[in-house]
Amino acid sequence: MSQIERVGVSLEKDLLSAFDGLIAQRGYPSRSEAIRDLIRQQISEERLDNPKAEAVAAVFLVYTHHSTKLMAMLTNLQHSHLLQTISSMHIHLDEHNCLEVIVLRGQVGEIKKTAENLISLKGVRLGRINLLATETP
Amino acid sequence: MSQIERVGVSLEKDLLSAFDGLIAQRGYPSRSEAIRDLIRQQISEERLDNPKAEAVAAVFLVYTHHSTKLMAMLTNLQHSHLLQTISSMHIHLDEHNCLEVIVLRGQVGEIKKTAENLISLKGVRLGRINLLATETP
Amino acid sequence: MSQIERVGVSLEKDLLSAFDGLIAQRGYPSRSEAIRDLIRQQISEERLDNPKAEAVAAVFLVYTHHSTKLMAMLTNLQHSHLLQTISSMHIHLDEHNCLEVIVLRGQVGEIKKTAENLISLKGVRLGRINLLATETP
Amino acid sequence: MSQIERVGVSLEKDLLSAFDGLIAQRGYPSRSEAIRDLIRQQISEERLDNPKAEAVAAVFLVYTHHSTKLMAMLTNLQHSHLLQTISSMHIHLDEHNCLEVIVLRGQVGEIKKTAENLISLKGVRLGRINLLATETP
Repeated sequence: MSQIERVGVSLEKDLLSAFDGLIAQRGYPSRSEAIRDLIRQQISEERLDNPKAEAVAAVFLVYTHHSTKLMAMLTNLQHSHLLQTISSMHIHLDEHNCLEVIVLRGQVGEIKKTAENLISLKGVRLGRINLLATETP
Repeated sequence: MSQIERVGVSLEKDLLSAFDGLIAQRGYPSRSEAIRDLIRQQISEERLDNPKAEAVAAVFLVYTHHSTKLMAMLTNLQHSHLLQTISSMHIHLDEHNCLEVIVLRGQVGEIKKTAENLISLKGVRLGRINLLATETP
Repeated sequence: MSQIERVGVSLEKDLLSAFDGLIAQRGYPSRSEAIRDLIRQQISEERLDNPKAEAVAAVFLVYTHHSTKLMAMLTNLQHSHLLQTISSMHIHLDEHNCLEVIVLRGQVGEIKKTAENLISLKGVRLGRINLLATETP
Repeated sequence: MSQIERVGVSLEKDLLSAFDGLIAQRGYPSRSEAIRDLIRQQISEERLDNPKAEAVAAVFLVYTHHSTKLMAMLTNLQHSHLLQTISSMHIHLDEHNCLEVIVLRGQVGEIKKTAENLISLKGVRLGRINLLATETP
């Protein structure tokens, strides 16, 4: 754990009271916690702009049962030396559709390329990539 | 499975050849598959604009180990009658940080509110919500 | 101008030093200014989620010269009683394409609907909407 | 103008009817026009990922009147040899706030850096960058 520092911030009264409203609505325990979250998010976004940055990503795929090509690609992914599959989760959404959540670790550019290849498969109906910068302080 | 229809689309030659380049790069097996994905994504985004729409969501939380409040909220979530926790996954990122992926089902507005409450907790360093419209054809 | 208040924020040393790096890179004159911007942006996004919120928007349209329907719609827009066209700007991009920037004031939901109708016109090749909450403190 | 080609697309009946609903709501004159827009948007986004890509951008700034530093930076911008200021527009929002829309041409990376420097100035309350890939077919 890192040492804590205290910083003074000047804010217009109106801005502060609007912020306090937002904080209450979201349930933040303190202004400091809300401001730390804003800062961390900004730093994380900045880092994820760099295709070489290390990231953890969750890839979200909704697909129909019989996509054998997807199964093959997911298996191959586990032997990739560019990306590390940390974990994956399989959920039956309804009689036709499944949801696969795959948590990967690797470089942003490599993760995006792999995710696009998964999403482009026949039988994969919807896909999203969610990136988190791992080195964010 | 739904019946297949065939539709004719007119495109400028330049646009088509740029699209073919994008398709090849992403690995789509056919133009139809790529266009279907674009359409599904657009319909999904449209539906998710409505806070009453039914959705499946994955909430990603990076947090430090000792967030007992988060543990309590995650447990409460499993007894919520507004949201259904379908599944969750816990990953040790490093000695200080964990990643929790929670897959929820419910209304968009309710999912967002719950996710914001989780993200606002002390000890939760980063959070993202990923929504998918479940009723997308 | 609103009265200024001073607030103390606690931050981990690592987070603060990463933030100072980001601030320097973006050219912020002080931490307070950077934090104020983060807060204002968050409040603005929150407000724009509400389709009834008052907003100023810029609509960007790239279109080919001979879109007479667009010209007619832009003229009609100036007589709309739901949206107020504050100003517009026309730019020749190249021999085939023009860029129109239209600054509108009105409710978020109404602005989005109008912009979608403009973007959907034949001859309009690309469009974007940029929303700013006007009541942000 | 580019030559027109005709392409056949296979779609599930349900997906097609949901798409027809969306098309009608947005006012598209035909399915072809709607699909062309989806494709152009996708190609544009792909290109804008590259910091070296040529783009047109509109920078949106809400600021208080007396920001002399902003005035100086906007004047300098017009003599930049990296970015070309195509046009700009100034709007009085209310007694305290102005909106400046600046249309720039140049490389994506350069545009983003300049826009971030403008947004970070004291007196600039909100800012957005809107990028359009110029070479999109």
